[in-house]
Amino acid sequence: MAHAERHRTRWAFRTLTTPPIITLTTDFGTADTFVGQMKGVILGIAPHARIVDITHQVPAHNVVAGTVTLESMLGAFPADAIHVAVVDPGVGTPRLAIAMRTNGGIFVGPDNGLFSAVLQRTHLRECVSLTDPTFLRRRVGDTFHGRDVFAPAAAHLAQGVDLARLGPKVDEPVTLEVPEAQKRNDRLHGCVLASDGFGNLVTSVRTGMLPPDEAHRRRLEIETGNVRILGVARTFADVEPGRPVAYPGSGGRLEIGIRNGNAAAELIIEPAAEVVVHGL
Amino acid sequence: MAHAERHRTRWAFRTLTTPPIITLTTDFGTADTFVGQMKGVILGIAPHARIVDITHQVPAHNVVAGTVTLESMLGAFPADAIHVAVVDPGVGTPRLAIAMRTNGGIFVGPDNGLFSAVLQRTHLRECVSLTDPTFLRRRVGDTFHGRDVFAPAAAHLAQGVDLARLGPKVDEPVTLEVPEAQKRNDRLHGCVLASDGFGNLVTSVRTGMLPPDEAHRRRLEIETGNVRILGVARTFADVEPGRPVAYPGSGGRLEIGIRNGNAAAELIIEPAAEVVVHGL
Amino acid sequence: MAHAERHRTRWAFRTLTTPPIITLTTDFGTADTFVGQMKGVILGIAPHARIVDITHQVPAHNVVAGTVTLESMLGAFPADAIHVAVVDPGVGTPRLAIAMRTNGGIFVGPDNGLFSAVLQRTHLRECVSLTDPTFLRRRVGDTFHGRDVFAPAAAHLAQGVDLARLGPKVDEPVTLEVPEAQKRNDRLHGCVLASDGFGNLVTSVRTGMLPPDEAHRRRLEIETGNVRILGVARTFADVEPGRPVAYPGSGGRLEIGIRNGNAAAELIIEPAAEVVVHGL
Repeated sequence: MAHAERHRTRWAFRTLTTPPIITLTTDFGTADTFVGQMKGVILGIAPHARIVDITHQVPAHNVVAGTVTLESMLGAFPADAIHVAVVDPGVGTPRLAIAMRTNGGIFVGPDNGLFSAVLQRTHLRECVSLTDPTFLRRRVGDTFHGRDVFAPAAAHLAQGVDLARLGPKVDEPVTLEVPEAQKRNDRLHGCVLASDGFGNLVTSVRTGMLPPDEAHRRRLEIETGNVRILGVARTFADVEPGRPVAYPGSGGRLEIGIRNGNAAAELIIEPAAEVVVHGL
Repeated sequence: MAHAERHRTRWAFRTLTTPPIITLTTDFGTADTFVGQMKGVILGIAPHARIVDITHQVPAHNVVAGTVTLESMLGAFPADAIHVAVVDPGVGTPRLAIAMRTNGGIFVGPDNGLFSAVLQRTHLRECVSLTDPTFLRRRVGDTFHGRDVFAPAAAHLAQGVDLARLGPKVDEPVTLEVPEAQKRNDRLHGCVLASDGFGNLVTSVRTGMLPPDEAHRRRLEIETGNVRILGVARTFADVEPGRPVAYPGSGGRLEIGIRNGNAAAELIIEPAAEVVVHGL
Repeated sequence: MAHAERHRTRWAFRTLTTPPIITLTTDFGTADTFVGQMKGVILGIAPHARIVDITHQVPAHNVVAGTVTLESMLGAFPADAIHVAVVDPGVGTPRLAIAMRTNGGIFVGPDNGLFSAVLQRTHLRECVSLTDPTFLRRRVGDTFHGRDVFAPAAAHLAQGVDLARLGPKVDEPVTLEVPEAQKRNDRLHGCVLASDGFGNLVTSVRTGMLPPDEAHRRRLEIETGNVRILGVARTFADVEPGRPVAYPGSGGRLEIGIRNGNAAAELIIEPAAEVVVHGL
């Protein structure tokens, strides 16, 4: 088949230049074989793809946590990387399965809002619904679209298949409200979005909302729970060990930590607790 | 050496076409360097091999759990993939180290029954004992055959070495009893084999033992512990959030879950609890 | 640019022969996107690098645990592998970021003693401070040098950039005291350094310090906490299930375990407890 041949040639060329990257972000955990099965399907179609695990520990069924996770790795990958994300409490319902091309990468997963934060920070070029059976697994089950739908779609994209061939156009992918900090007078009102593995608290305050001037940043006051922190530090090392510190996190958001400690465990802060930045 | 050269040529050819796949399934956990060391040995011999972690969280020393794990990923990988599995409480005893070719893949690991479930579902073509020192690590220790025996054997297979060269033929690899559900009158009597990371309970009832007709499936009654579930659903989404549900799992077995919940935690079900399907 | 071209040619050649290996050892955990981001940066620069996770579960901020971890995987990888290690409580302080070439591999990470155990067992050929911005990420933040400094440096090394080009020479990388067992009369005095995922206790007694003769080893007595073990066994299988056993671990150190059990959980042994080997 001429078509297949053309694909094969393109693939051989890609292989000798730059192998495609496929990342995986899921709530599957690593105790089961789910992630391994997805990789088996991917490598069966795209044997040269470089598969990168982002994390498989998104809290189960938590789509908001998933979208914040995806956002935090934007920018670390080449813009032609393919990102598969599966946090999919609605698998088996009529929710769509989609693939999107943005200026920040290609994304494949359920159309349930999982890409909301990505869509806030990138430009959507094209979105399709994954319906063409040519690019799905032969038998699609009702419980494991990661293996049967998203993995093969991503692998075919990695092989150079055009996004538009995977299925009909989707005009507007589903988006969720991701909490955004609000400016009121000289204050920013935000909240704690998540905590990372070190116990650092990631807030809804984007670093870009803070004054750029460092002297000004040092005069800000950050308040959350019963904690008040004076100044946005440049880094942990600006405070003594054991002290709380607010600093611009590596994911583009203001974070609150404890130097050489665990803020999530040691500060008495409710999930989604309010965070106020005073002195803007 | 002519022989080595022939291998090298074959290897170069494979590389330019499809790199070999080696999967790893162990009870090593991921806190130590055991898995990393195995990968170092593999890449030292087979630098183009694509290594895929299936899981390293098989319960320690639990060979039955290991064999169910291996079974659950059969079919997701190309049939020439090489699967290394190490759940090996008898390392250092006279148990054999083996490599087997089946129609469902190549398997490398201890001869302790770890491949029982695989052997039930595939055809064994050839099995050898890993004794030829050419294909082992120079110094084989007594405690870490994953690194010293199984990793190099798999890597040499990936490089195109014939299985028969690794050592003498083994007629019958060791097999364990893996619980199978039994049909009695209009009932299937099985048990809970394992729970996955979402808390879904995997049973010994194979989906193929259920009636294919969906209307009939909806009339079945599934009983385990103090729970009775009406009907085998198509998927989670067929029940309300928080409700228990029986459904055909992605691994080919009947599973019991709770929609958006954790059945292993929320249902009061003993390990290896009986599962009865009524109304066949 | 002639220089770039030369690099590209070398890279193409490496690719068709042996892709470079980059390993990662961190205390980042796997719940966040930190490790994934490092891989994105690496693959953006060195698309053919084979990235191997050693572990991301070094206890947070524990540099001594990190150095023992690195030591334990020495020897499993080809000598030209590049090992990135990040246990970095001092990120953002004036501590140097370094890359070192040894006869046991190339190491990249913070200059805080993390490579102490490696330096005890290898010969240092060359060490530089990572200061040339050409080989760092465009914007280097103050909190995530894993992504911004160490990942790009390792990736450029993988692409064939000479170590000396990354920055000025460092004469003596920082080293920490790693506890070493001491010989006194007919005894070795050491301590427990760590426990692995199976609960086996890794001691500061190197296997090379024990008599090589097996009959002699069987007459030694190993004492720790309230446990006395007669003889260094060849392997676990030399004792009955449930019994404590001392044996030469796969990492080159004497270890204490319980056959089919968990010594760290079952023996009453303090962290860093003394271990004495009698009868040398």
